[in-house]
Amino acid sequence: MTDVYDNEVFFAEYSAMDRSMKGLDGAPEWPQYQALLPELHGLNVLDLGCGMGWFSRWAIDQGAKSSRGLDNSHNMLVRAKEMTNHEDISYEHVNLDQVSFGGDMKNKYDLVHSSLVLHYLVNLDDLVKQVHNVLVPGGTFSFCIEHPIFTSTYHQDCIVDDKSGNTYWSLSYYPNEGTRKIHWLNSDVEKQHRTVTTYMNVLLTNGFEVTGFDEWFGSREMLASFGKYGVRESPMFLLMSAVKK
Amino acid sequence: MTDVYDNEVFFAEYSAMDRSMKGLDGAPEWPQYQALLPELHGLNVLDLGCGMGWFSRWAIDQGAKSSRGLDNSHNMLVRAKEMTNHEDISYEHVNLDQVSFGGDMKNKYDLVHSSLVLHYLVNLDDLVKQVHNVLVPGGTFSFCIEHPIFTSTYHQDCIVDDKSGNTYWSLSYYPNEGTRKIHWLNSDVEKQHRTVTTYMNVLLTNGFEVTGFDEWFGSREMLASFGKYGVRESPMFLLMSAVKK
Repeated sequence: MTDVYDNEVFFAEYSAMDRSMKGLDGAPEWPQYQALLPELHGLNVLDLGCGMGWFSRWAIDQGAKSSRGLDNSHNMLVRAKEMTNHEDISYEHVNLDQVSFGGDMKNKYDLVHSSLVLHYLVNLDDLVKQVHNVLVPGGTFSFCIEHPIFTSTYHQDCIVDDKSGNTYWSLSYYPNEGTRKIHWLNSDVEKQHRTVTTYMNVLLTNGFEVTGFDEWFGSREMLASFGKYGVRESPMFLLMSAVKK
Repeated sequence: MTDVYDNEVFFAEYSAMDRSMKGLDGAPEWPQYQALLPELHGLNVLDLGCGMGWFSRWAIDQGAKSSRGLDNSHNMLVRAKEMTNHEDISYEHVNLDQVSFGGDMKNKYDLVHSSLVLHYLVNLDDLVKQVHNVLVPGGTFSFCIEHPIFTSTYHQDCIVDDKSGNTYWSLSYYPNEGTRKIHWLNSDVEKQHRTVTTYMNVLLTNGFEVTGFDEWFGSREMLASFGKYGVRESPMFLLMSAVKK
């Protein structure tokens, strides 16, 4: 299946978002996420779903030794090579749902990072096993995903209680893991809903110690600007970090 | 303030619940919770909010060396001494929000357990520090709480979407930690809402490694029997275990 980021309608809209135009500073969860990261100086970084490469480039600018950015979208990789390239970064086309890191990658990376990508993948357990393999002992795996409370619903919208007039995030089907088909940026997008338990256990059962956990809510003002996603104080992103034991 | 379990109306209703009449087998989350526990044989156990003592007695029956059950409710302790007493168990009246474990309790317990109690406490960080102090290195702190998704709302009820006719758990105010006043078992009950992040971080920042994480949802059939709490596949309990580093 073509990556949704290679759908031209979707990509045009995505490219106009703050997180595309302004990079990390345009991502509202960035300050909280940054607090989960280790000191970057001298690290070899693997960026799973690197998009336009904002994180890979930031890592190099922080003193990381190298960064390898992988993405399934040709559009994204073209943009990365235009906007964030550096001699210590390599950008490669990889489908993370089918990736098989070779033996030469064992114990090679100090930090594996992934921003808003894992909730698109079907084979998460397999990928986490591979992340464990490519990390050095004590290395960090950090990621940000859409929060399971956010991905749980099938329609991804608020409802208004006619009795009180209040707007609520209509939580439903939280335990029903699997595909959610939503309409976002004028396109049909498929994502994978998993519970918080599943994200915790895919780490705990694959040799990681969970070291960081945070949820991003946004201010009322910011949420209001999100239109229908401006959920009433409901968490939108889940941020985690873990260390290879 | 008098413990709500010493309110006679509340206690009579609570006493009629399956988890009071049938003990651990009447607690729907028990099979999942049990999976987070260490082997009990030979352990010294501290039971925070022991209630009628079902867990303390079960621990002794599993071969635990001793169990010390603490509770703030006189009604509960009377019932514990009637129903679950054993020469290797001591039951004591303690307000867990004001407890100060003495130096003689340092490194004394192998397992500290707490079932459906922590969400009533105001001083959680202080208690967790004390739990860390009384555990032996490598000892386990395990607990079950009402899930933050469940405690977040102020009215604790479902709402019906008039458009679709569907029933939803109306998530609201999840980030607003603090007191929730609800009506349960014909009584006014106060509990403390905290996010999942806060429960994770109170462990991570106080010297624990999180080793177990689970959420209890219940089957549709079971939830239907809960009346208005029969939330549509929304998590009701959060179960965690952690080890003293």
